[in-house]
Amino acid sequence: MTRSVYFFGNGSADGTRDMKTILGGKGANLAEMTNLGVPVPPGFTIAAHRCVSYLADGLVDEAFREEVTRALERLEEVSGKRFGDASNPLLVSVRSGASVSMPGMMETILNLGLNDETVEGLAKASGNPRFAYDSYRRFLQMYADVVLGVPIAKFEQLLGSKRVTNGVTTDSELSADALRALVHEYQQLIRFTTGHEFPMDPQVQLWGAIEAVWNSWTLKKAVDYRRVNSIPHTLGTGVNIVSMVFGNMGEDSGTGVAFTRDPSTGERRFYGEFLVNAQGEDVVAGIRTPLHIDDMETMLPAAYTALMATQDRLEKHFRDMQDIEFTVERGTLYLLQTRTGKRTTAAALRIALDMVDEGLISQREAVLRMQPNQLDQLLHPVISSDVRATALAVGLPASPGAASGIVVFDPDVAERRHAAGEQVILVREETTPEDFHGIVAARAVLTARGGMTSHAAVVARGMGKCAIVGCTALEISHEQRSMRIGEHVINEGDWITLDGGTGRVFAGDLPTQPSEVMRVNNGALSAADAPTYRGFAKLMGWADEDRRLRVRANADTPRDARVARNFGAEGIGLCRTEHMFFEGERITAMREMIVARDLGGRRRALEKLLPMQRADFEGIFQAMDGFPVTIRLLDPPLHEFLPHGGEESTMLAQSLGLTRPELARIVAALHETNPMLGHRGCRLGIVYPEITEMQARAIFEAAVRAHRRGIDVRPEIMVPLVSDVSELRHQREIIERAADQVMGVMGERVPYLIGTMIELPRAALTAGEIATEADFFSFGTNDLTQTTFGLSRDDAGRFLPHYIDKGILAEDPFQVLDRKGVGKLISWAVRDGRATRADLKVGICGEHGGEPQSVAFCHEVGFDYVSCSPYRVPVARLAAAHAALA
Amino acid sequence: MTRSVYFFGNGSADGTRDMKTILGGKGANLAEMTNLGVPVPPGFTIAAHRCVSYLADGLVDEAFREEVTRALERLEEVSGKRFGDASNPLLVSVRSGASVSMPGMMETILNLGLNDETVEGLAKASGNPRFAYDSYRRFLQMYADVVLGVPIAKFEQLLGSKRVTNGVTTDSELSADALRALVHEYQQLIRFTTGHEFPMDPQVQLWGAIEAVWNSWTLKKAVDYRRVNSIPHTLGTGVNIVSMVFGNMGEDSGTGVAFTRDPSTGERRFYGEFLVNAQGEDVVAGIRTPLHIDDMETMLPAAYTALMATQDRLEKHFRDMQDIEFTVERGTLYLLQTRTGKRTTAAALRIALDMVDEGLISQREAVLRMQPNQLDQLLHPVISSDVRATALAVGLPASPGAASGIVVFDPDVAERRHAAGEQVILVREETTPEDFHGIVAARAVLTARGGMTSHAAVVARGMGKCAIVGCTALEISHEQRSMRIGEHVINEGDWITLDGGTGRVFAGDLPTQPSEVMRVNNGALSAADAPTYRGFAKLMGWADEDRRLRVRANADTPRDARVARNFGAEGIGLCRTEHMFFEGERITAMREMIVARDLGGRRRALEKLLPMQRADFEGIFQAMDGFPVTIRLLDPPLHEFLPHGGEESTMLAQSLGLTRPELARIVAALHETNPMLGHRGCRLGIVYPEITEMQARAIFEAAVRAHRRGIDVRPEIMVPLVSDVSELRHQREIIERAADQVMGVMGERVPYLIGTMIELPRAALTAGEIATEADFFSFGTNDLTQTTFGLSRDDAGRFLPHYIDKGILAEDPFQVLDRKGVGKLISWAVRDGRATRADLKVGICGEHGGEPQSVAFCHEVGFDYVSCSPYRVPVARLAAAHAALA
Repeated sequence: MTRSVYFFGNGSADGTRDMKTILGGKGANLAEMTNLGVPVPPGFTIAAHRCVSYLADGLVDEAFREEVTRALERLEEVSGKRFGDASNPLLVSVRSGASVSMPGMMETILNLGLNDETVEGLAKASGNPRFAYDSYRRFLQMYADVVLGVPIAKFEQLLGSKRVTNGVTTDSELSADALRALVHEYQQLIRFTTGHEFPMDPQVQLWGAIEAVWNSWTLKKAVDYRRVNSIPHTLGTGVNIVSMVFGNMGEDSGTGVAFTRDPSTGERRFYGEFLVNAQGEDVVAGIRTPLHIDDMETMLPAAYTALMATQDRLEKHFRDMQDIEFTVERGTLYLLQTRTGKRTTAAALRIALDMVDEGLISQREAVLRMQPNQLDQLLHPVISSDVRATALAVGLPASPGAASGIVVFDPDVAERRHAAGEQVILVREETTPEDFHGIVAARAVLTARGGMTSHAAVVARGMGKCAIVGCTALEISHEQRSMRIGEHVINEGDWITLDGGTGRVFAGDLPTQPSEVMRVNNGALSAADAPTYRGFAKLMGWADEDRRLRVRANADTPRDARVARNFGAEGIGLCRTEHMFFEGERITAMREMIVARDLGGRRRALEKLLPMQRADFEGIFQAMDGFPVTIRLLDPPLHEFLPHGGEESTMLAQSLGLTRPELARIVAALHETNPMLGHRGCRLGIVYPEITEMQARAIFEAAVRAHRRGIDVRPEIMVPLVSDVSELRHQREIIERAADQVMGVMGERVPYLIGTMIELPRAALTAGEIATEADFFSFGTNDLTQTTFGLSRDDAGRFLPHYIDKGILAEDPFQVLDRKGVGKLISWAVRDGRATRADLKVGICGEHGGEPQSVAFCHEVGFDYVSCSPYRVPVARLAAAHAALA
Repeated sequence: MTRSVYFFGNGSADGTRDMKTILGGKGANLAEMTNLGVPVPPGFTIAAHRCVSYLADGLVDEAFREEVTRALERLEEVSGKRFGDASNPLLVSVRSGASVSMPGMMETILNLGLNDETVEGLAKASGNPRFAYDSYRRFLQMYADVVLGVPIAKFEQLLGSKRVTNGVTTDSELSADALRALVHEYQQLIRFTTGHEFPMDPQVQLWGAIEAVWNSWTLKKAVDYRRVNSIPHTLGTGVNIVSMVFGNMGEDSGTGVAFTRDPSTGERRFYGEFLVNAQGEDVVAGIRTPLHIDDMETMLPAAYTALMATQDRLEKHFRDMQDIEFTVERGTLYLLQTRTGKRTTAAALRIALDMVDEGLISQREAVLRMQPNQLDQLLHPVISSDVRATALAVGLPASPGAASGIVVFDPDVAERRHAAGEQVILVREETTPEDFHGIVAARAVLTARGGMTSHAAVVARGMGKCAIVGCTALEISHEQRSMRIGEHVINEGDWITLDGGTGRVFAGDLPTQPSEVMRVNNGALSAADAPTYRGFAKLMGWADEDRRLRVRANADTPRDARVARNFGAEGIGLCRTEHMFFEGERITAMREMIVARDLGGRRRALEKLLPMQRADFEGIFQAMDGFPVTIRLLDPPLHEFLPHGGEESTMLAQSLGLTRPELARIVAALHETNPMLGHRGCRLGIVYPEITEMQARAIFEAAVRAHRRGIDVRPEIMVPLVSDVSELRHQREIIERAADQVMGVMGERVPYLIGTMIELPRAALTAGEIATEADFFSFGTNDLTQTTFGLSRDDAGRFLPHYIDKGILAEDPFQVLDRKGVGKLISWAVRDGRATRADLKVGICGEHGGEPQSVAFCHEVGFDYVSCSPYRVPVARLAAAHAALA
């Protein structure tokens, strides 16, 4: 039988940090800390596979029950207390803990083991009846909520009445007697609501709690979280049963959470918050605004000294910034948890670089520590520096970036209005895991309560969203759907702007400005004045040493090309020529071409377009001096260039000398049932070879002109939507003829390549043949995914989310490249293409080119390069390094 | 060096009948006949590869010229005449001949070798100056037309003037002197039009003619013909240079064409036409209406006797019905050509069966002789037997079938109006190869002149189109765009109806009735009264003995199922349930389901649909008693069931209790950009499991009900548009649950299978996984072709014809399964699926299932069955036999 229970306590543990998949992160680290000799209350962990089997069949077998019983006995032995003992009872916490951190998503129960008898024992043992009854009423409330499904609001109501009848304003002013009476009322409430007595048997309580933790794996918020974070639903959670220590035993007790370095900036200083005379949940839930950790030095000096030593030891041991939970019980420090701390990207950069300087980690580790997708955060805009607006309020800058949006006070409303295309900012007193879907929908989050480690702060940071928390000036009225900040009233639907970097809240939709990294990129700021940029550049430099894949950008204009190059792009992998046709008089010439009645008319219109295209290409060649530029020939169906009714149609008809009905007839004739599979790509250049010819001429004329100006030009001409080698052969002949003609007339040759997109299954299936006519392949994985799955990206919104939700597909194949289907086609095509032509250049230009898992795939199958949007170039560079180091 | 020239004559030949690819069909058979001792004028054949290399580089090398010169010398030796000899000149014909018969598509030149000197020699040698000058003027005209590009009409004009100035009405009345003068005028015309003298040097004439024949391979009509008949453009044509014999040497001479059996009915009788004192082209071109072959017995008795012996010998030798050309020169018979004769399907059936009876061929050969696609002709409708209309005229019944359409007199007009969606009948004095595209566009052809072997007759028969030729009562006026038949005037655009089986021409759009085979199928006629049906059934029976593939039908109604079964279908391979939703009140219930706001509303509407579906299924099970019935779950996107505006929308809104704008909003919300790749197939059943559940229940309830009535039911439930095994798993669970529930309640079990369509590349790529949940695969090759090529069938009309035309794709992949791409996916999927599940049943239900080449592919990759439209079942049965015998 597989072992299911792992004990820790008394300086040694059955588990280690390497057993995260079995024990979950929390359990593995509790074991590790115990082995290290760090003060941890004893306890045991139920392995995650028990959760999986319980959720499958709902059964708990006898052998397993006995394992738990034996562990409990050992816990009684080590703690010197007995479970259910009326004089000195053992109390435990029951907490979830999956192998991947899912903060706040699953259930926790504290003070388990209390009943009408043991509460008296606790009172006697602690010498503090008030504490004992406060613990009991908290336990009843938590257990009833989590295990028995009694709404928490009803308990809050009874508690409120008790304050009123006792003439006090805070819970801590309630006497032991008042609390004892409240316990009685709580028990009545439970009996009334559930039809059963509250279970007095601690064994019954324990198993109820364990099953509740297991079941919490399938709570909506947990499922949502896993979906957003691509965590498999099959992991299950461990259950940690740990003997209780109490931060609420008086003024010499307390509880807190802390980071070994600043999670916002990365600064090397111990950073955290604590509360005196409180239990752990109080800090995390943001119910009371906590004190700064530095204040602990004076309030709980011995514990503080121990904490400082311990945190230092933990960081060195785990070799990464730690996020710890601790409790001080009557002056003695206990660690309840340690885990790798979440951090902003700027902080992650600084921490990684500092730790290399400190000799704690290697350059390679620094590169691997940085998650590629995190880099995105560095590009987030901030409020423009020239905005003179006065902040309405200032809260804690929990997650950086600037964001504007309309205010909503409810996560469901946030989701709905977001779905309707609005930018929303979710404003809450505090957020709870139930708000998760609202945070997902929002551009930013603002809360009135809670600290830098509150739920809202942690979740928003994890998603790279702007968040401001603990903004105490906020008064929210849910009835009036508005909030008041001093004199100012803001209603649902009004615009506000948040600056997550400084914590400032503004009225209205303020202009934002590029981030530090962006300003260096566009030349508005010198790198010397940009410390984050310097860190970024240093890490990128290290990453470049490790990677094998080249990184190019998808860019259609000289401006985009420059942005990309400044981010380290080594060429252009996709220049979409059609984007050049959409501006000003170009669209008119384009439309003339489309409605032309004959070849002559088409040629005349194309002659107008040629100089415009040529100028664009020349600018791009200049921006990419020394690097290859892949130019794709016209791809979209022609009807995309025509207006569909309205004023524009009238004007167009006039300018083309047509009647409205004539134009309407042309537009209708070009209509397609499935434009994605219609007359586009090389099918245009085959039916209208003059289009290909014009584009090829424009490219070569631009190339020769640039070459004359001393620019090192390397055009790579790409034929789209090929399904058969004969299509490519046909287009290649036209392109080569244009090259010979242009270079002959201009008297100067430039080297060039001709290749094709592989974006249809048939192209991949016949890649060996196609390679006879191709100098390079560029996988167009957007279209290849659409055709391989038979899935229109434009229409998939109606069912794809449902698919992900129900786990029918693990991931959106438009985001993460599907290895099993699309990937199989790609790897075969690379193999067959290279078998025909060993020096075939292979790249990708779909959006997957900037997605880390997909970049790893491209590395594995031997691509030469990936190409992605200019802003994803750093992500791709880092992902390529990760892939090479994997 | 590869040999290029093959001689024949004097009883022996360099070639044989097996050398068709080298010599072309005509050359190979001329060689074969020579070897057999059949009287053939001596000559030689230039191999087809010479045509290919000439068309590639335009060059004729010296070594080859010498080969031709040597062959010509040998020909002079054998014939005892010299090329260019002024006293007894050798004259030759120069004729094309490809390995696949392309009748009339390429060029022919007769009487080559004549010039101002040799014509006198011919006059002396023949003792007939009139004949010599008539031959010369024919040669000039033909050569100028074919080689020099002088329009033939100009020669006709001069000839016409000559008749007038000589006061005669026919050419044959022109004297030798008149013809000599005409020759002079022809030469002036050539000089004036081309700027050069007509070449007097026979060598120059010969090479000009050879190159003209080669070039005629690329004439539009020839290219069109190859495209329609799927003949590769790469074959090239042979050139046959044969010493002339003359059917126009007087009343003891003549020329004719004949079939060894009746090509229309297959009757075993020598059947043909001839003309006295004429050259061969006169018969084929239909310029003079020829005499019946039987008349030859009295007119040219010796030659007739020789001809009868020869035709019998040729048929026995070639073991098939022959189509021969012959000339009688002064009483002596010469065979100019023999080839396998084209025939109607009824004739083909009868000939094959008779030849088996005669011991000439085996049963297997009979099966292989019958081309599967030909069977289609047997299903052509005929004019209803109760139509009392009087025929306007009666012509020769050249190709059977009945057809109605509007009259057009020009092939271009035919093409244009056909493209506009009209049914056209092409009416011509006679057709020529230049009319080919018009015949392709027309439903039927009617000509005023020409016999059963004229161009129109041969081409229409080859295409399985109705044709009536030699309808001499017709007077066409091209100026007035009308024709007169007696008193009756029919204008362009008026409707007529042809009965190709009897040769009758009717005014108006007459009702037609099913063919003999169809009437037996639907029970209107007893097989005892249907000889063609009996032949058909006999041959089908033989085919069934040979084939391994099972043949099923795609049928959605009990009626279609019965038609299919009567044609020999062994089950239903595709029953499209959505077709059942389009009728009467069903569509209303369906629409209620679609616009329902919640699950409850959807369920209520589905409950209404269930009994209707159940009744349909029960009827189908009954019709297919003992055979499997594959039922596909709902496939099309829901918006296909909704009206898009108009009166219907108003009524629907009312009946659903919605306002017009509300309904419009629902319709708009369901709109898809690419419906082919949208929310359809199993994606519907996954988002709305209640639809799958209802359909499964209807199927199982119907199955149990039918089973109770003693019907052997074998339902196979098919899940459409699967791209991942988890989709199939999801649907399978629902279906199995419904089965257990229905059969539990009804207390009776029936066996069933659950499988899936493989119609997306990803399904094929992950077939090994999918097979874990599938009892069968059915390849939906329509959609698989669309997605593999990225080609919407609805939109491909804009460029696919251009692709075929330019040879970019050899064939329309929606007609003939693409082996290179789609086929590769299929064969992998079969391999992977069977690796997972050895007993996996595999079939096809796309339209390719009734196309012979595709059926052959299905046989090769090990399918269990093909499924096609009920009317294609015989074609598939025969194709399956061919595949098995290949």
